[in-house]
Amino acid sequence: MRGAVIHGPGDVRFETLDDPKILHPTDAIVRTAATCVCGSDLWPWRGQDATEHAHPIGHEYVGFVEEVGAEVTGLRPGQFVVGSFATSDNTCAHCRQGWTSHCERREFMSTCQAEYIRVPQAAGTLVATDGVPDARHWPGLLTASDVLGTGWWAAEAAQVRPGSTAVVVGDGAVGLCAVLAARHSGAERIIAMSRHEPRQRLARAFGATDVVTERGAEGVARIMDLTDGLGADSVLECVGTDAAMGQALRGARPGGSVGFVGVPHGVAVDGQELFFSHVGLRGGPAPVRRYLPELIDLVLTDRIDPGRVFDLALPLADVAEGYRAMDERRAIKALLTP
Amino acid sequence: MRGAVIHGPGDVRFETLDDPKILHPTDAIVRTAATCVCGSDLWPWRGQDATEHAHPIGHEYVGFVEEVGAEVTGLRPGQFVVGSFATSDNTCAHCRQGWTSHCERREFMSTCQAEYIRVPQAAGTLVATDGVPDARHWPGLLTASDVLGTGWWAAEAAQVRPGSTAVVVGDGAVGLCAVLAARHSGAERIIAMSRHEPRQRLARAFGATDVVTERGAEGVARIMDLTDGLGADSVLECVGTDAAMGQALRGARPGGSVGFVGVPHGVAVDGQELFFSHVGLRGGPAPVRRYLPELIDLVLTDRIDPGRVFDLALPLADVAEGYRAMDERRAIKALLTP
Repeated sequence: MRGAVIHGPGDVRFETLDDPKILHPTDAIVRTAATCVCGSDLWPWRGQDATEHAHPIGHEYVGFVEEVGAEVTGLRPGQFVVGSFATSDNTCAHCRQGWTSHCERREFMSTCQAEYIRVPQAAGTLVATDGVPDARHWPGLLTASDVLGTGWWAAEAAQVRPGSTAVVVGDGAVGLCAVLAARHSGAERIIAMSRHEPRQRLARAFGATDVVTERGAEGVARIMDLTDGLGADSVLECVGTDAAMGQALRGARPGGSVGFVGVPHGVAVDGQELFFSHVGLRGGPAPVRRYLPELIDLVLTDRIDPGRVFDLALPLADVAEGYRAMDERRAIKALLTP
Repeated sequence: MRGAVIHGPGDVRFETLDDPKILHPTDAIVRTAATCVCGSDLWPWRGQDATEHAHPIGHEYVGFVEEVGAEVTGLRPGQFVVGSFATSDNTCAHCRQGWTSHCERREFMSTCQAEYIRVPQAAGTLVATDGVPDARHWPGLLTASDVLGTGWWAAEAAQVRPGSTAVVVGDGAVGLCAVLAARHSGAERIIAMSRHEPRQRLARAFGATDVVTERGAEGVARIMDLTDGLGADSVLECVGTDAAMGQALRGARPGGSVGFVGVPHGVAVDGQELFFSHVGLRGGPAPVRRYLPELIDLVLTDRIDPGRVFDLALPLADVAEGYRAMDERRAIKALLTP
């Protein structure tokens, strides 16, 4: 088969690779229907995460079950499946409490920009749809694999409540999905921080009521203007930089909450500043698997249309162009089909 | 009048001072019935907080209303009152949301180890009891002024739920009150971290089911032993050091919560560690005023006996001995009466 391999900064190649095989009786092999490039894939592309040696890459996927291991229950070849970027057995103590992305058997998917994928803990990780969905729903279902679920988690971690005010920091696909999630959670006012016109438009389409283009201290000042000087009830931090975290913490009201869902890079939170802010903070890899049944239903019944974050569609063979377009902000998110 | 003045590390003197006066029409003057030394007073006593110039000290108090300013409603001379260490008008936007210790007119009380005290925003800050309580209740009511309310806040911030497991880091008066609060919030298992026998006894009397004497990585390992390797649902961090915070974060289960209520000194939280822990974090100066009516009722009806944290009673004139005894851990908390 063929798939993407990252060799170093700016160097992703579409190569011939060994076909994945069942390694454990709990594995399944999935034939990819669609995959994509994630904002977090740009960390190694930009050299902000080191690439010690060349390796396959990608963690978002929908596809068809090709083969299942001897212990995989509830799945059979031919089914259309959506899975989380973090595998989960759905039976361990953490999974039972809903923390599927903290499963005792968790692995982070990492070979998904390819024609075939090995999915560990397949019975827990994958959710099959009823029949094969119409292809127009595939992009939306694909977002459920990571960015949509991560937006949902941002809203949960930031404790978005009906009637509240939410700020979303970050206008990548996760930030845009976080706007959708804040809307779904009943936020009355949703302030999207974005300086990119096409992303501002999509944020408004997803439910943002206000757009703030300023950043840093000026961005915080604008949030204060818009909230009678109090700050927001919830801030959904969807970037992962220290600047974004600072903006999030300073934009929340006393007693408000920040949910942070971008993998932090160089973020240190000063204990005394957090203390005197009275702001609550929770983050982590999204427990996407917990949300999948709800998200799949919302997409298939056309109540949400998160697939709109894909503004570039490419053949999987052109995966490197997907990275380039996202890095240069020519695209919000690149859809890849084998 | 006379009161305590701190001149520098280890140097608290009982001196003659000007009688406090009404400075603003929202002030009241309170004649102190009882005051005390707080663990946080030990930071400047130990030189860990600088004392630039000599100043009065102390922030916990119960007493009798002596005089009220022209705009103070609902209070009259002779009433017995309990007040928070943080003043609040109870009418601003933050107060209305319950964040009384983030009041727009907040001042931190700082002259309370004295015979008379000026209390700003008196109508909001002070709660009068029905009649003058029996003197045996004064110590318990005095704890409501800070340490008891701070324990309550630790339990709220750490989201203690009925049937859950809570860990309390710190065995000072706040930590012991946090045990009481966790018990009141319905925690089924309460693990107190303490290596001091008299404090362990009081922790058990207040509701602790287990005591862990180890610290650091060994302390965390013991918590894991006691929680089937999962970690606690809630950790109440009542110290304020980086070591205590590390212990708290590592002792919580994925999806668990840490409430931190000791003013952080040299605490920095690594964003990536917090992210991958899935632990929620909230702290701050306790919104004591919000809890006062409930706490006063619990004390006066003998449903809790937080006054037991006072294991040393001194005349106010001997205030320096109170500091010394607490610093040397000869006393948990020193009660001072004029």
